[in-house]
Amino acid sequence: MPRLTVIVASTRPGRSGRQIADWFTATAARQGDFEITLADLAEIKLPFLDEPHHPSEGRYVHDHTRRWSAVVDASDAFVFVMPEYNAGFNAPLKNAIDFLYHEWRYKPVGFVSYGTTASGHRAVQMIKQVVMILRMTPVADAVSIPLKQYVDQDGKLVPAAAMEEAAVKMLGELRRFADAFAGLRAPA
Amino acid sequence: MPRLTVIVASTRPGRSGRQIADWFTATAARQGDFEITLADLAEIKLPFLDEPHHPSEGRYVHDHTRRWSAVVDASDAFVFVMPEYNAGFNAPLKNAIDFLYHEWRYKPVGFVSYGTTASGHRAVQMIKQVVMILRMTPVADAVSIPLKQYVDQDGKLVPAAAMEEAAVKMLGELRRFADAFAGLRAPA
Repeated sequence: MPRLTVIVASTRPGRSGRQIADWFTATAARQGDFEITLADLAEIKLPFLDEPHHPSEGRYVHDHTRRWSAVVDASDAFVFVMPEYNAGFNAPLKNAIDFLYHEWRYKPVGFVSYGTTASGHRAVQMIKQVVMILRMTPVADAVSIPLKQYVDQDGKLVPAAAMEEAAVKMLGELRRFADAFAGLRAPA
Repeated sequence: MPRLTVIVASTRPGRSGRQIADWFTATAARQGDFEITLADLAEIKLPFLDEPHHPSEGRYVHDHTRRWSAVVDASDAFVFVMPEYNAGFNAPLKNAIDFLYHEWRYKPVGFVSYGTTASGHRAVQMIKQVVMILRMTPVADAVSIPLKQYVDQDGKLVPAAAMEEAAVKMLGELRRFADAFAGLRAPA
């Protein structure tokens, strides 16, 4: 089975991201198209990019970079569970992307975004411009969560059927791309 | 005189940003329209956003946030000296912006960008979408530095007359906006 890594982009105290990622991961496990890994950036604790060489060279001098490189390199597809701050993606996600280069290439990525104003849509549009330059393929199907509607007064996620359906649709599309790209990424 | 804060966005070892900011700051001092402060994010060392409350509430619990708030609040205009990573802005800049809220409001911002592929143009377009949601005004005049052309083999910046002219033009525009906005930001 291809391997899907679910990246939890928010590292902020009080974030909604982890419970959304846990819900998504459970849904993906039931759906059964991928072997799933959760990569929580709050646990991975990368510093701000501190490598002296361009990541395209792969000459990493720090262990934290080598560990992160191994996680991403072993993945066949990604889902970013991502908040929206000031109409854009958040810094920890961009930082985690910028640390690496070839590891992302020819892999599909889907988005589970959330926000109070725009369900994270603007952050997703913005990160698409970044992942495409790395030769990733953003899938069109996405899960977009209006926090005011799906989080209760105690901050607890109340998943709706529409979220579940959107997740399953996105997972199917990720699997189709992952299968198609397996050949593209085969060693020469 | 209005106060201009020049923010050095790159914190990476081997960055070009600091010498570009030093060149720009010297140019701005000669031009004489602003009292100038250099805010080097590599020295300020903000962590990834770790405040529990939304920045619009101004209820900061960390000293690093209060210090950064004081710097930005005391400024009348900004220049971001910024690199481009993967067609976008870098993480430390977005993080420094997201930490605060009202402190940015009704202030103009100019961009000194640099890059090997596109002189940082794509990163500037992307950050405009962020600063505008905070009610900042990005000025149209900018300094865009093609690194291959203006950095020599030892990595030393060789400023060109065109850079100097672009900087002076941008500073004039920043000053016009800063003056216009002074009334807008006066306490009620």
